[in-house]
Formats: sequence, C-alpha cells, structure tokens
Amino acid sequence: MERIQTIEVGQHSGERVRVAGWLHSIRRLGGISFLVVRDGWGVIQAVTETEAELGPLGANQVGESGVESVIAIEGLVVEERQAPGGFELHDLRIEMITPVTEVPPVSLNKRKITANIGTILDHAVVTNRHPARQAILRLAAGGMAGFRSVLTAKKFTEIQTPKIVASATESGANVFKLDYFGRPAYLAQSPQFYKQIMVGVFERVFEVGPVFRAEPHDTTRHINEYVSLDAEYGFIENHFTVMALLRDVIAGILDTFNEQYSAELALLQVQMPTVPEEIPHIFFPEAQELIFRLHKTDVRSEPDLSPQDERWLGAWAKEEFGSDFLYVTGYPMIKRPFYTHPDPERPEYSNSFDLLFRGTELVTGGQRLHRYEDYLAALEKAHLPIEPFVYYLEAFKFGMPPEGGFAIGLERLLMQLCGISNVKLTTTFPRDLTRLTP
Amino acid sequence: MERIQTIEVGQHSGERVRVAGWLHSIRRLGGISFLVVRDGWGVIQAVTETEAELGPLGANQVGESGVESVIAIEGLVVEERQAPGGFELHDLRIEMITPVTEVPPVSLNKRKITANIGTILDHAVVTNRHPARQAILRLAAGGMAGFRSVLTAKKFTEIQTPKIVASATESGANVFKLDYFGRPAYLAQSPQFYKQIMVGVFERVFEVGPVFRAEPHDTTRHINEYVSLDAEYGFIENHFTVMALLRDVIAGILDTFNEQYSAELALLQVQMPTVPEEIPHIFFPEAQELIFRLHKTDVRSEPDLSPQDERWLGAWAKEEFGSDFLYVTGYPMIKRPFYTHPDPERPEYSNSFDLLFRGTELVTGGQRLHRYEDYLAALEKAHLPIEPFVYYLEAFKFGMPPEGGFAIGLERLLMQLCGISNVKLTTTFPRDLTRLTP
Repeated sequence: MERIQTIEVGQHSGERVRVAGWLHSIRRLGGISFLVVRDGWGVIQAVTETEAELGPLGANQVGESGVESVIAIEGLVVEERQAPGGFELHDLRIEMITPVTEVPPVSLNKRKITANIGTILDHAVVTNRHPARQAILRLAAGGMAGFRSVLTAKKFTEIQTPKIVASATESGANVFKLDYFGRPAYLAQSPQFYKQIMVGVFERVFEVGPVFRAEPHDTTRHINEYVSLDAEYGFIENHFTVMALLRDVIAGILDTFNEQYSAELALLQVQMPTVPEEIPHIFFPEAQELIFRLHKTDVRSEPDLSPQDERWLGAWAKEEFGSDFLYVTGYPMIKRPFYTHPDPERPEYSNSFDLLFRGTELVTGGQRLHRYEDYLAALEKAHLPIEPFVYYLEAFKFGMPPEGGFAIGLERLLMQLCGISNVKLTTTFPRDLTRLTP
Repeated sequence: MERIQTIEVGQHSGERVRVAGWLHSIRRLGGISFLVVRDGWGVIQAVTETEAELGPLGANQVGESGVESVIAIEGLVVEERQAPGGFELHDLRIEMITPVTEVPPVSLNKRKITANIGTILDHAVVTNRHPARQAILRLAAGGMAGFRSVLTAKKFTEIQTPKIVASATESGANVFKLDYFGRPAYLAQSPQFYKQIMVGVFERVFEVGPVFRAEPHDTTRHINEYVSLDAEYGFIENHFTVMALLRDVIAGILDTFNEQYSAELALLQVQMPTVPEEIPHIFFPEAQELIFRLHKTDVRSEPDLSPQDERWLGAWAKEEFGSDFLYVTGYPMIKRPFYTHPDPERPEYSNSFDLLFRGTELVTGGQRLHRYEDYLAALEKAHLPIEPFVYYLEAFKFGMPPEGGFAIGLERLLMQLCGISNVKLTTTFPRDLTRLTP
C-alpha cells in the first residue's frame, strides 16, 4: 500500500491507509493504547484495544518507551473529534522500521520543551524534532521563500557571492580569520560589496546566504553565523525608494506566512502584524525631539538611538499610527559605514534608515554612494586605505546608477515576530561563543 | 515619464518611452549615431542623425567612448527589423546619470570576450556585465530556482545549516581551518551530516548554499568555494529511489531553463539535452566488463572509473539508449565515505551512484546508513574515532528511516551544460589557489 502523509489522512475517511514516521508518543490507558505518529509534516493518532495489534510496539518488545522508533502503520481512517486533526487510525497493522530503545535527552511529546536552553541546543539534533522547534524552522524556510518570491516578481536576479574574502567589509573588527593556502583570508560579514558590484551587472539583485560575525558577545540577540536576506538595486531616487521596496518585501514575507504557515503560526501563538500601505517614518533628529517632549529624556546630542529610545518610538508609532512598524531615517553619517550616501540637503545626516518592528530594530538599509569620486573622498575621510578596495571601486569607476538596498537578518525577524526569547532558538544549529557542535 | 525595461520596449511601438541603463556601445557612421543601452534585462538600440540630440554623449562631452556611462533615454519606439529585438528608439532625449570616461579593462560590447581568462577573472567586477557573462550567471539563478521549485513541490523543506563546523566532514584533508574565538574550526566541505540529521526533523530537506574545499589544485574543473544543491530524504527503498528523484530534479532544472531562460540558452548556444523518463543505469562491475568488451581495456580490477572510462560509458549510453545521461550504480564501498550504505546482496559494492552527463560525472548520491549500530561499525572499520561524530550519531540513535540523497555542484552543472571550458567562468567571483579578489 502506498504511504500517505499524516496531514492527508483526513481525505481518506473510511479507507485503509498507510502512514510512516516517528513514534511521537505512546500512552496506555487500561487496555487501550494511543499512539501518535509524527512524519515530516504533522502527526496522526492511532488507537488499539488489543496488545496483539501493537505488534512490535508491544510491552515485551521495545518496552514502555520506544518513542522515536521509526514505524509504519496501516489502519482504518475514522473521524474522531478529540484526536489531533480530527481523524485517527483503528484496526492497526504496525511495522517496525528502526527501533529505538533509549529515552531521548529531551522529551519531544510534551506541548512545550521543558529543558533549559543549554540542553535544547546541545541536543538540537533531537530537539529540532519537537513540533514547536519544527514550526519555527519551517517559518525560516517560509521567510526565505517569501523573500525570494517578492523580489523575483519585481525582476530581481538571485546571486551567490563569495564567503571567503580578502579583507573585512567595513572594519577589521569582528571577522573570522582563516588560512587560505598560506595567506590570511576572512569570512564575509555581509555580501555588501558584492551585491553593490552586482547592481552594475543585473541592476536588481538579491542573495540569501550565510554571513559570519566574530562578535565575542554571549547575549540573547547574538549568533556568530546567520542567514542574511540581502537586496540591492539601482535607479533609485533615494532611501525612500528602498523603504518602499522593503515595505513590500516584509508584507510579502508575512503574506507567505499567513497563507502557507497558518498551522505553525497558531502553534507558536504568533501575533501577526499588518503592514501599512505606507510605513510611517520619522527623521532621526525629530525622533530625538519627540523623545525629549514625550519622555523628558534629552538624547538630542546622541549619534544613535538606544534600545530604550527605540521602544519609545515603537510605542509612539503604535499609538499615533496603529503601526507595528516605523522607519527612522537620516541617522548621522558618523555612525554609518563609509559607503553610505549623505543627505544632499543636510550632509551630516545620511540617506539611510532603520526599520523598527514593535520597538526593536529589524532592518538597516539606505542609499549608497554611487560615484567613483565620492568613494575616494569617503575612504579618505574614514582614514581607510584604497588598496583593499580597488576591486570594489572598479564597479563605480565604470558606471553605477544611484543605488541602495537593505539586509534582513532572518533569525532576528523570526525572533521578533514569534516573540522568542533567544535568537539561538530560531535556527537549526546556532554558532555562539562556545558552541561549534552540533 | 515612468522608466520601462529595455525588453518591454517592443510593447510600446509608436509611443514615446523612457529607458535607462549603461551605454553598451556607441557607433558613429557618417552623421548617424547608433547607441545601444543595456539594462538589467537586455539591450535596446537608439539612433540619431543629429549631434545635438546626442546631448551629453556628444563628442565634445565624454569623448569618443563614454561606454558604461549610466544614462537615460527618452525616445519614440520604431519597428526596425535590423535592430536587436526588432525595435529601436528615435527622436532622442538623452540624460547623463553617471558619466564614465575611462575605457573598461575588457571590451563589453563585442559578441565574445576576447581577453584571456586571467584578465576576465581579475576584472570580473566589470566583465560580468558582458551579455555572455550575464547569461551564464542568470542561468545560475535559474538553476537554483528550478532546484528549489521541484523539491518544494515534492514537499521538501528548505534548510540552512552551519558553515563553520568543529571537524572535517569525511576526512581531515581539503578543509579550510579558521580561528573560532581561539579554538580551531573548519569551513563545511558539504552539509552532508546536517542534511542527514535534518531528515530526522523534516524527513525531506534541501539546501542551497556555499561549500568550501581546500583542494590545492589549479585545474579547469576546480574552484575552492562553490554552490551545492543538496537534497536528502527518508523512507526510501534504496538508491534507486534517490535516482528517480534526481531524474525529476534534473528534468525540472532543464525545464526551468527552457521555459524562462531561452534567450540565455540561445546566446550561449547551449545544446539542451532531454532527460529520459527513466535514465538508463549500469552496475559498476558490468560497466567495467562493457569497457573491456568494447575497448579492449581491462579496468576490471580498478576501484573507480577514470575520466576515459566515463567518456566511453557516456558514448555507449548515447548510442544504446539515445541518452545524454547514464547512472553508474554500485561503486565499490572502499571508494565511498563511511556513511555509505552497502548493497545488502553484494556488500563490497555500495548502494550509491554517479550520474554521468555526456560522459562526465555530474552528481554523486546514494543511500546512507541509517542504523546507529551500522554507524558504530562503519566508523570502526574506517579507523575513525567516535568522539567528533557524537552529535551526528545522536540522529541515528534516536530513530532514522532508510534515507539517501545527492548533491549537485551548480557550477559544474552549468559548465557541462553550456560547454564552458573552465568552471571558474560559471560563477560571479571564483575562489581559486591564488584568487581572493574580486
């Protein structure tokens, strides 16, 4: 009999079907046994009142446990409102595929994982099987797919750029150094330079790939390798063009979640935001004025916003516009990387932005310099040598339109959207200060 | 006026339109100037008989050249059979956006790039703009998209796994070593272990991402960082199940090219193969017998096939079955990594395969071990310690179905499909023995 997926069982009411997967749980109540089988997409319950039917799962076979054994079950599909999904299997024929006798290091069949985060991460190989972990990792897949789908529809071309690079992107700090056939090399902190270069080739480009940050911080918001959703494109007016695109990208990712991942959103109890047609925006110094006026805290001489400032601004956007999202524009040039385009009217401010989501920075982006002369001047001003950037500068020497872009950290997006307390819990196998396995 | 793409110009015959992009070429014949503008998607010709209309491109402005200058042109769309795409612009208004006066290091507007490969790669930042280079890089995007699309339709879940790892995947050789906060770490040679682990989570998984091989070879077939299209899944029968999936994946990628990249295929003069419903296959020792019979060369005691053997087998498959593709199955266990599943009937041979395409190996795959005890035995047999693999083994300790998969090297696929002489020419910015920039 052809195997079907657990989530397809409901389409076969009254028929015999075959499912296969992991023995998620087994409960015995009196003479009745309730089995739950988990496959790559969901779970299905199977019920028997006879020990014989349990076959290889009988008490004298793999013992009381046997969870995570890989099994196949043939059974009759019966509607049962109390069962997960509304259907269950009766009249079972159970086949053992791979028996497991040892008890998993973390219980996978409780509604929540009760282990501490260290144990969860040390045993991620197994804990990722928990439905709540599966759900967040499925959303990661959905986030990547949604990102690509919006940008492909807008005629962006996907690129893959090198992760082994000759020099740090922006500063010498926070890069992992490696031995490249006897020469020093580094892991890319971002595809920034390459995506800009590729604007000269395809005009509109995006990349989904790993980036590496050697930040020696062990916080709930840091991981040392993460997935960056990068977009960059030419023929923009200024950073407001980029902000309009980013709005559509965020809306597209959320649409993907709503349309294709409703079960995951429900399981994780995600409060889905709506994205306004136009996300409200506030100019950096005006944001500081606002904070002064509303909260009597004078941050007007600060070159950046603090987390507290961001929370205040997020709360203001929610109250004033009913929006979970707020753009802060025009961050001071002094805090932005050398390739940032200044505001032509007020050159101490930049044509850049942060997108705040529920009072926390989610995305950074902006317009970049595009004229060769401007790059030479910017490098000089930043006291940076030209030599390591010669290959990059060639893109601007030979013609670049006004351009800009942004980068979304996939894990941070999931963390903030799902209200997850630690970013390490949003990825398959996080890398942190001490963790190189699993 | 709203800008349109060059490839949309034909839809506006008789109207005035605005295009923007790079000045691909400028030719003056008598009093007539022929301009070609290149944007992210194609080219359009613009023609003028007056110097005044040339405006910022006039001889006294940017000189004879000015190619790669970023410009916008408004003009009247006129049908002209001789023009590329069948339409051209007349009655021009030209706007200079970013002037370029220096001549590019490699001519971008000749039908072929005439520079040697060293120059092409050294100046990839600019040479990637050549239409032939754009075409191959667009096919790379199409290959990734096609791969994902087939597997998503087959309910595979996309994963992203760590590229910084604690130990070499299969052997200590050919890995890049890096400093991870004072500890040694390595760049992943493949996502093999992680994709297998994730079969325990999602049952069917795929990943598109960079892999790193520190192979100190400077050949036309080696790059040190490439894009791997990885798939892995559970509940297979044996390697023949995997071969059937791979057949659909290859067919899906080729369909994507045929349906969405016909201009690129035409430009690159690609001879597109058809994929038979069932790709013919031959068992390794029988392939050796066949070679002995057909070519009087006795390779029957060799543990692997030579490139010459593969060419002979490819020619045989073409003649015998009219197929550009051939599976060779059952490579000797001795040449395959420790996680390879043996043929249960003939345990010195493996349940693995290579896919030959036009007589060259394109993909390797197979069934993996899935029982914990089998892994312990295999590691012992391979004289490998257990300790570095403990996290990996946890996936098998806690239940894994029979599983297998494959990995397609994106660049190698493009190289073979398009008949490109050097794999370095199939990627944006290749990494080789000496090349860390661009």
